[in-house]
Amino acid sequence: MLYFESDYNQGAHEKILESFLRTNYEHLTSYGFDKYSDSAKEKIRAACGCPDAEIFFLVGGTQTNAVVIDSLLRSYEGAVAAVTGHINFHEAGAIELTGHKVLELPEHNGKIDPTELSAYLRDFKNDANNSHMVQPGMVYISHPTEYGTLYTKDELRALSEICSENRIPLYMDGARLGYGLMSYETDVTLADIAKYCDVFYIGGTKVGALCGEAVVFTKGNMPAYFMTTVKQHGALLAKGRLVGIQFDTLFTDDLYFKISRHAIDMAKLLKEAFEKKGYSFHLDSPTNQQFIILDNKKMAELSGKVTFSFWEKLDDERTVVRFATSWATREEDIDELRKIL
Amino acid sequence: MLYFESDYNQGAHEKILESFLRTNYEHLTSYGFDKYSDSAKEKIRAACGCPDAEIFFLVGGTQTNAVVIDSLLRSYEGAVAAVTGHINFHEAGAIELTGHKVLELPEHNGKIDPTELSAYLRDFKNDANNSHMVQPGMVYISHPTEYGTLYTKDELRALSEICSENRIPLYMDGARLGYGLMSYETDVTLADIAKYCDVFYIGGTKVGALCGEAVVFTKGNMPAYFMTTVKQHGALLAKGRLVGIQFDTLFTDDLYFKISRHAIDMAKLLKEAFEKKGYSFHLDSPTNQQFIILDNKKMAELSGKVTFSFWEKLDDERTVVRFATSWATREEDIDELRKIL
Amino acid sequence: MLYFESDYNQGAHEKILESFLRTNYEHLTSYGFDKYSDSAKEKIRAACGCPDAEIFFLVGGTQTNAVVIDSLLRSYEGAVAAVTGHINFHEAGAIELTGHKVLELPEHNGKIDPTELSAYLRDFKNDANNSHMVQPGMVYISHPTEYGTLYTKDELRALSEICSENRIPLYMDGARLGYGLMSYETDVTLADIAKYCDVFYIGGTKVGALCGEAVVFTKGNMPAYFMTTVKQHGALLAKGRLVGIQFDTLFTDDLYFKISRHAIDMAKLLKEAFEKKGYSFHLDSPTNQQFIILDNKKMAELSGKVTFSFWEKLDDERTVVRFATSWATREEDIDELRKIL
Amino acid sequence: MLYFESDYNQGAHEKILESFLRTNYEHLTSYGFDKYSDSAKEKIRAACGCPDAEIFFLVGGTQTNAVVIDSLLRSYEGAVAAVTGHINFHEAGAIELTGHKVLELPEHNGKIDPTELSAYLRDFKNDANNSHMVQPGMVYISHPTEYGTLYTKDELRALSEICSENRIPLYMDGARLGYGLMSYETDVTLADIAKYCDVFYIGGTKVGALCGEAVVFTKGNMPAYFMTTVKQHGALLAKGRLVGIQFDTLFTDDLYFKISRHAIDMAKLLKEAFEKKGYSFHLDSPTNQQFIILDNKKMAELSGKVTFSFWEKLDDERTVVRFATSWATREEDIDELRKIL
Repeated sequence: MLYFESDYNQGAHEKILESFLRTNYEHLTSYGFDKYSDSAKEKIRAACGCPDAEIFFLVGGTQTNAVVIDSLLRSYEGAVAAVTGHINFHEAGAIELTGHKVLELPEHNGKIDPTELSAYLRDFKNDANNSHMVQPGMVYISHPTEYGTLYTKDELRALSEICSENRIPLYMDGARLGYGLMSYETDVTLADIAKYCDVFYIGGTKVGALCGEAVVFTKGNMPAYFMTTVKQHGALLAKGRLVGIQFDTLFTDDLYFKISRHAIDMAKLLKEAFEKKGYSFHLDSPTNQQFIILDNKKMAELSGKVTFSFWEKLDDERTVVRFATSWATREEDIDELRKIL
Repeated sequence: MLYFESDYNQGAHEKILESFLRTNYEHLTSYGFDKYSDSAKEKIRAACGCPDAEIFFLVGGTQTNAVVIDSLLRSYEGAVAAVTGHINFHEAGAIELTGHKVLELPEHNGKIDPTELSAYLRDFKNDANNSHMVQPGMVYISHPTEYGTLYTKDELRALSEICSENRIPLYMDGARLGYGLMSYETDVTLADIAKYCDVFYIGGTKVGALCGEAVVFTKGNMPAYFMTTVKQHGALLAKGRLVGIQFDTLFTDDLYFKISRHAIDMAKLLKEAFEKKGYSFHLDSPTNQQFIILDNKKMAELSGKVTFSFWEKLDDERTVVRFATSWATREEDIDELRKIL
Repeated sequence: MLYFESDYNQGAHEKILESFLRTNYEHLTSYGFDKYSDSAKEKIRAACGCPDAEIFFLVGGTQTNAVVIDSLLRSYEGAVAAVTGHINFHEAGAIELTGHKVLELPEHNGKIDPTELSAYLRDFKNDANNSHMVQPGMVYISHPTEYGTLYTKDELRALSEICSENRIPLYMDGARLGYGLMSYETDVTLADIAKYCDVFYIGGTKVGALCGEAVVFTKGNMPAYFMTTVKQHGALLAKGRLVGIQFDTLFTDDLYFKISRHAIDMAKLLKEAFEKKGYSFHLDSPTNQQFIILDNKKMAELSGKVTFSFWEKLDDERTVVRFATSWATREEDIDELRKIL
Repeated sequence: MLYFESDYNQGAHEKILESFLRTNYEHLTSYGFDKYSDSAKEKIRAACGCPDAEIFFLVGGTQTNAVVIDSLLRSYEGAVAAVTGHINFHEAGAIELTGHKVLELPEHNGKIDPTELSAYLRDFKNDANNSHMVQPGMVYISHPTEYGTLYTKDELRALSEICSENRIPLYMDGARLGYGLMSYETDVTLADIAKYCDVFYIGGTKVGALCGEAVVFTKGNMPAYFMTTVKQHGALLAKGRLVGIQFDTLFTDDLYFKISRHAIDMAKLLKEAFEKKGYSFHLDSPTNQQFIILDNKKMAELSGKVTFSFWEKLDDERTVVRFATSWATREEDIDELRKIL
């Protein structure tokens, strides 16, 4: 069986396991105050070109979104997001559990449009009844989006300016950030993200770690008592080293970027393999997730030999499915896939 | 420097790291549906003598308490606990964040008293104004308690009967359960706990794992859609293998029990070392946490050579401190401590 | 100045004030256990043809929606509603504050479509990822809707059957229920509503009371400890008589229905007045709210002589506005309006 | 039957009903923007000697406590209160529902002690583990307390200074404020309260209104978007006039103070009646609630002729009961009581 259904069904990059072994018996301060967490933060600050960034390590994506959003918003505020945003559908209501509404904007291949955001915020301000409505208190974007697409630097700058004018933070969900940064079709760097976003997270779980996400506050804007808020949400690790060591390893010798690039290279080969065989794509994704249209007969046939994810029904005869590569995909997996196709 | 300040400042038992290495490149189903999680559950069921137990793996203790308590209670209910219960003071209001009050009972060396619980529940029922008050919806106990003490089997049975009569579940926080089970001064087995508690958790973080707690529902009473509730609380791991593999390892060949017993043996030696030197104890703890009274001069002197935790000020001249052993404490550490004392 | 901007800018029907005066010095049990509340409940049960209905009086509409929805849903569930539903936009996130997501369906003149509801619930069940999503736990409709429109008996029956098959309750927001029941274009009676809805509320605030809404549970399904839940939401009146007396008066000699019919008659005259002058309507509303298209110049001219509510911009030159009649609208007000038009 | 069980079992002062009648058909702006609400606010500002006070009208006491406390606290903060504070026991967990813990201090006849408050806040700051605990974010006091007792001006000043030094607001629950201000044994004026408290509320429900509490922010510190927060909590009245008119009436010609003084005078007579007959008091209450010790036989005998509230069991033979006077108690009621005793 070949496996392409997700980028989180294998363990961790082996350098991470080596780090666990090497440091295992060291007595380290708990709750994230250990030296490896400190070192990881320094390396991330350098990679972001943001020497004053405040960084906090959390365990998973939904948790990170809930904790960050709840800590940034006042009770009467909501988070503006694309209707397809991960927080709006696939997080089981984690944002609403914290008391906040997700305020929906239309999506364009998973992205929100700066002009539409601007109009939404202006209309809200001008609405005489807006005190009876949830106030837009921040903007949530994902990069890559749920459809694998990427914002351009111009779009990011525009979103940033709109948020800044409206005095609300711009937050980027970077669950797969590495794959976005290492795409061959992006002009956005990690430094750009640190410049344009008020807060974002660098995803570890889907990019070579066993777990862990690094939240980066870029403007001296980490909320007061953030650690207490994290604890209150059940998100504070006693052994903070678990995530600290992983990020310290990932940000040593550009490992995070190298393994992300590898996944992108594998995705390119995968894409070409499908193209050559005449398959069509639901949309043009520049990252590690590829959305392919299969007729249902073909889908049934393939599913005995290779795993992939159901995405959505296109019509009665065709289905959109997702093939994902990862840091651990091997070139021979692609070769094998080619044969099957 | 010698380290006795906590049982969670070293990594994981090396067999766990070996398991990570061995399984690292296997493609496993995500979100806890992998074969190692399944195997771990089977082994825990066997160890509990409870073949129908429903088991869910979570990451940390505060998270587990918040998710379990919120899933068991209706909105208008609270959790009855000792005033010193971990959920009442040292979890940053995680229970209240889910909308529930902690209803306090007096503590006796960290334990609640069955007679007092019974009286409290009876008085509540008889209070004509009780519809204006938070309804007691469950009972929370920790075992070992925050003071290292243990319930006897008779006490546990009494608490269980009271809960049963009042139709509310009994929940045990087992953050350090291994150390409780392997104490030389307990008559309580894991099977007893499974019998008397409606739900409890087996702590991993403080007993040899990098992270992870195993929640055990013993009466076919896992709440409907529990996985969705877990996700909503940001507590669902994408790579469920992370905890599944650890518990599978801990419950292979009684590893969990053996390493717990080791910590107890080390605690015994530590206790004897203090006793021989004439130190006195704040209370008699039968587990891996020892609460020792130091005069402040001695405390300052020791703190340059050995780490321990501040517990509480006894008076102007004396302080209660905690020395903790763990699965990783070495006999030579105790020897060294002896010399220092 | 003439006033048509809303149905809640005058006091209460004078019979209500008379009842306040008559009963003022009586010593009555607090918290809703007074005899007038009891009597009001009996009369409402009779009017609903539902002798076992359980009834609770609350103060306002948003409060009622939040308390009822939170009491019916489990933590992981949300309320399905039209995208234009009052709970989705104009209640400042009151539902989300209780931790629940509003799950949106398309709207058709403010109504949801039974076929679309059925498809939504079926698709949700069939979605392999649905455990990562908010579970649909109830259906919310308003009658009249936010656009003054009404469900037919067939539609109501269809919604009821779908809910029943899916074992989720159907809840009707009846903030303006009287105006719906007394419309000349409805085949739905109060008994039908009691039959088809699991719970609904009879609006007082907008139908002749100073405040107050009567929540009716029709299937023996009032949640346990509902009064405690009400108190917990800050919604329990110490002087329950305030609402009890009002509903007792409104349901004596059909007062609620008579004053509602009066508003409908006034709306008919108002509608005719606009029609005669060639105005067009945004949609055909059979109740007391009429949505009229004004060109902006006309709108400015009228606004000096008569009050109405801005509804939405139609295009650059035209605006939709709302004219509302109420229990207190006088025929001479319509005459005056006619002259102005 | 004679009635002394509470101060909220009769309607409203008749001047309030007259105001309802007089203003009933006026078209007034909704949601609290009417002229009577404005006028009431002006009069309250004058009575408080606080011309810049920001005032908001809410419906009931539990609602007011929940809305004010939730709006003042950040997510990780709790409200410090006496263990007997109303928010801690008799509000069904309304504070916890908003996600906040009540942090308990010992009570002294229902009051907290400034020295103990100061020590608590200092110890919290010095606790090395305080980031794992709920931060004290405000102080809640009631005046009169749940036991009818009153803070002295010195105590109030001390509490105010401690809060100020710790940069947390002091909030006073004034459900029965009138009875406190008009006690013959107080040196605290309304102006003092406005000076020393950051926010407090003037209770209407228990002092002559049908419902309604006036929240007063005294330091330009009304939270941003407070109206939206109120709406979100289901606490915004569509017909804001309902409370505005009542407070406008209560603060015209000192009505609030006169009727409060009347209740105090009645309480004095009631107290003397009990004293003369040799009854003893549970504590010395200077306000309208009197806590009397009855032997159980006497209690049974009285309960056929006069209503009072059960307070607490003193021992097997004696019970503490509460007799309350109100704005509506008549001197002949006391005469009658005297005969019965």
